[in-house]
Amino acid sequence: MPQDRQMKLGAFLMTDGHHVAAWRHPKVRPDASVSLDHFLNLAKLAEAAKFDALFLADSNGVRERGLQALSHNSRAASFEPLTLLSALATVTQRIGLIATASTSFNEPFHLARKFASLDLISGGRAGWNVVTSSSDSEALNFNLDTHYAHADRYARAREFVAVTTGLWNTWEDDAFLRDQDSGLFFDPQKHHVLDHRGRYFKVRGPLNVPRSPQGHPVIVQAGSSAAGVDLAAETAEVVFTAQQTLADAQAFYADLKSRAETYGRDPDHIKIMPGIFPVVGRTEAEAQETFEALQSRIHPVVGLALLSSTLGGFDLTGYPLDGPLPDLPETNGPKSRQKLLIDLARREKLTIRELYLKIAGARGHWQLVGTAEQIVDRLEERFRKGGADGFNVMAPFLPGGLGDFIALVIPELRRRGLFRTDYEGRTLRENLGLPFPAHRARTAVPLQAAE
Amino acid sequence: MPQDRQMKLGAFLMTDGHHVAAWRHPKVRPDASVSLDHFLNLAKLAEAAKFDALFLADSNGVRERGLQALSHNSRAASFEPLTLLSALATVTQRIGLIATASTSFNEPFHLARKFASLDLISGGRAGWNVVTSSSDSEALNFNLDTHYAHADRYARAREFVAVTTGLWNTWEDDAFLRDQDSGLFFDPQKHHVLDHRGRYFKVRGPLNVPRSPQGHPVIVQAGSSAAGVDLAAETAEVVFTAQQTLADAQAFYADLKSRAETYGRDPDHIKIMPGIFPVVGRTEAEAQETFEALQSRIHPVVGLALLSSTLGGFDLTGYPLDGPLPDLPETNGPKSRQKLLIDLARREKLTIRELYLKIAGARGHWQLVGTAEQIVDRLEERFRKGGADGFNVMAPFLPGGLGDFIALVIPELRRRGLFRTDYEGRTLRENLGLPFPAHRARTAVPLQAAE
Repeated sequence: MPQDRQMKLGAFLMTDGHHVAAWRHPKVRPDASVSLDHFLNLAKLAEAAKFDALFLADSNGVRERGLQALSHNSRAASFEPLTLLSALATVTQRIGLIATASTSFNEPFHLARKFASLDLISGGRAGWNVVTSSSDSEALNFNLDTHYAHADRYARAREFVAVTTGLWNTWEDDAFLRDQDSGLFFDPQKHHVLDHRGRYFKVRGPLNVPRSPQGHPVIVQAGSSAAGVDLAAETAEVVFTAQQTLADAQAFYADLKSRAETYGRDPDHIKIMPGIFPVVGRTEAEAQETFEALQSRIHPVVGLALLSSTLGGFDLTGYPLDGPLPDLPETNGPKSRQKLLIDLARREKLTIRELYLKIAGARGHWQLVGTAEQIVDRLEERFRKGGADGFNVMAPFLPGGLGDFIALVIPELRRRGLFRTDYEGRTLRENLGLPFPAHRARTAVPLQAAE
Repeated sequence: MPQDRQMKLGAFLMTDGHHVAAWRHPKVRPDASVSLDHFLNLAKLAEAAKFDALFLADSNGVRERGLQALSHNSRAASFEPLTLLSALATVTQRIGLIATASTSFNEPFHLARKFASLDLISGGRAGWNVVTSSSDSEALNFNLDTHYAHADRYARAREFVAVTTGLWNTWEDDAFLRDQDSGLFFDPQKHHVLDHRGRYFKVRGPLNVPRSPQGHPVIVQAGSSAAGVDLAAETAEVVFTAQQTLADAQAFYADLKSRAETYGRDPDHIKIMPGIFPVVGRTEAEAQETFEALQSRIHPVVGLALLSSTLGGFDLTGYPLDGPLPDLPETNGPKSRQKLLIDLARREKLTIRELYLKIAGARGHWQLVGTAEQIVDRLEERFRKGGADGFNVMAPFLPGGLGDFIALVIPELRRRGLFRTDYEGRTLRENLGLPFPAHRARTAVPLQAAE
């Protein structure tokens, strides 16, 4: 079986687990969010199992509203992803390190620099998950009264990505000669300024970090709105997405791959990795029991707040918990997520409480509760039928849920030839089967000419 | 001898060494700036010798002008300090981790968060060296055409530090209960917003990182202009400075400690650690030989560019290299450094070439070439006579120069009881003898009231 027909797997590390009540699970250490040991252990576990990458979410602030819900949630405060991944880089050798970072309240120079540095530190294993920020609580930390409008966020994101990749191309791969005898450190002809002047940014460059063994960090994108998909088609090398059904997954996959082609890209150079929320047991009953152990620990105030937030900030207070979801106004938040949820509620005729119980686990992602064989059957179908190139594994609780996936699901994937037994390469690109990005100076202006 | 009469020592890690020609030294690996192994080795060396902290400089761009000089210099591109220190945090246990970061082109929320995260990752060992940026080449990477005026930079820096420390005080030390049974993760009464609305920044908070075992990162300050000293007196816990003579060092020390008192601070809670550039040998001749081995490797184009840049960007092209330094106009750059250099040139009647050879090594800092005994004599004098609380050791080349200091100078310091034989504590504050910063909510507004 050729290597390119094997799944790619990411380990999505949501501090104590993807399930919102994970921190209350007796097998979870409740201080996971501030324990470096916890993350060192997770990184080593995932690398031993040959995951392609660790994947960290991010938020530029305490996102949720309402002190009561917030104080019952373990997500309010934890490590910042880039500093955490740098710490994990020194204790791992092969696994990729993907951090989320928003284009909304950052400067491209800072982000280009920090990711390039992580990429060098890790020997070419970094990835940047490009997102836009959609919460007022983040905007309020950055001199604004409200967040940007949806369209504006994506225009800014598009320019941000162009500037960042431009900065990653200011040094050619073989620019540094480091000739101790002559005293010439780099070849002046292989060093470029960017001199970007756009609508949102004016950035001269060059970047003060060289290119890494994989050229530059892998670009990951997670937005599934029309603007998000278009940005992904143009720029992303990995796409993190959420689909509930095979048909939706296939439609998304086909659309994105064909849009990538319209941008002149090889569709195989954009890997689509939907999130999955697997709860695995040795028997179906054991899996269900594990799931219920988490569901039963959801504090109602947390469930309701999570639902409101996922629906784009719409306040559901006052609606009967055991009544249907009301009609909702259009959100300025992530549109795709809202639509997925509303469709789900209508399709399965869920009450508000049932809906929050549903999303509190997988939170919009594909929930798979069962034995390894049952889970692999469904993953294999989605993978073989054009719905995914791999999956981002959002373990329900950590490290136990990831350990269960590694102990039960991965052997079954390997039995069917669907997942690697060892890393193919040393860089994230090599393991994902992505091409080395040839150097391209965005402007041909050498530094001398500009000074 | 009481512990507070021992010197504090920082290991200033300028990639391949503080000397501008260090990278050409045969004992230096020319790719040091992109070698994680190089830095891992340095961190372990310094920690084994019980240094208080590693100290990293920073620049938000390729600082020097002129492609010819730039291409003969090893400083153009290297790791970003915060990602590098996070990587070093996992392989060290006790040594402090101080990174420079500019207030000029950053957002307080990002910086507060990243340093708080490094502080947590390292178990309370982080420090932030607060600087302002003074080069156009940095400004051009951040949507500006020129850098801020000197006064404006410091006003912004002052507000930046206030916002950052405010964010570090949005969670009380014992805010997190993590009660798995009740589901209460934190005590809502121990969580505060900042709600800062100032001239430069509007930041609500709270920060999404908890306080660390040392409360929050140690604040370090390096500016020696009047505005810089005043900011240090108000906010800094460690001051990194440059003085050539005992009299200057004593005057600076006395002035800063007394200014700190006018801000209501205990003068012992601000540690003054000037930079030193030690070239040590088993004999005086050996030390001189080591120094000449470096000096002889300075490419003239590098020496001249370094001098121009240190003088605030004044272009010395066209002036005879073997003639005197011309009269210079007032700079918009770091005033203190320019004045120190001009004074040095006039005092010692140096030509332009002699001046650049002089600063190319120590670059404005105190240069000590000799045996361990000679060097310790002078350090002891400066330390005992009220010129310093310790020193920031800027090894001429790395790791060799640091290794020489550890092998020769530190044993002599210890013989005289001037330096520790083991760490006093686990956090940077404990080792520096700085107090734990009691939590103070900058505003008394709990989150509930603000929403």
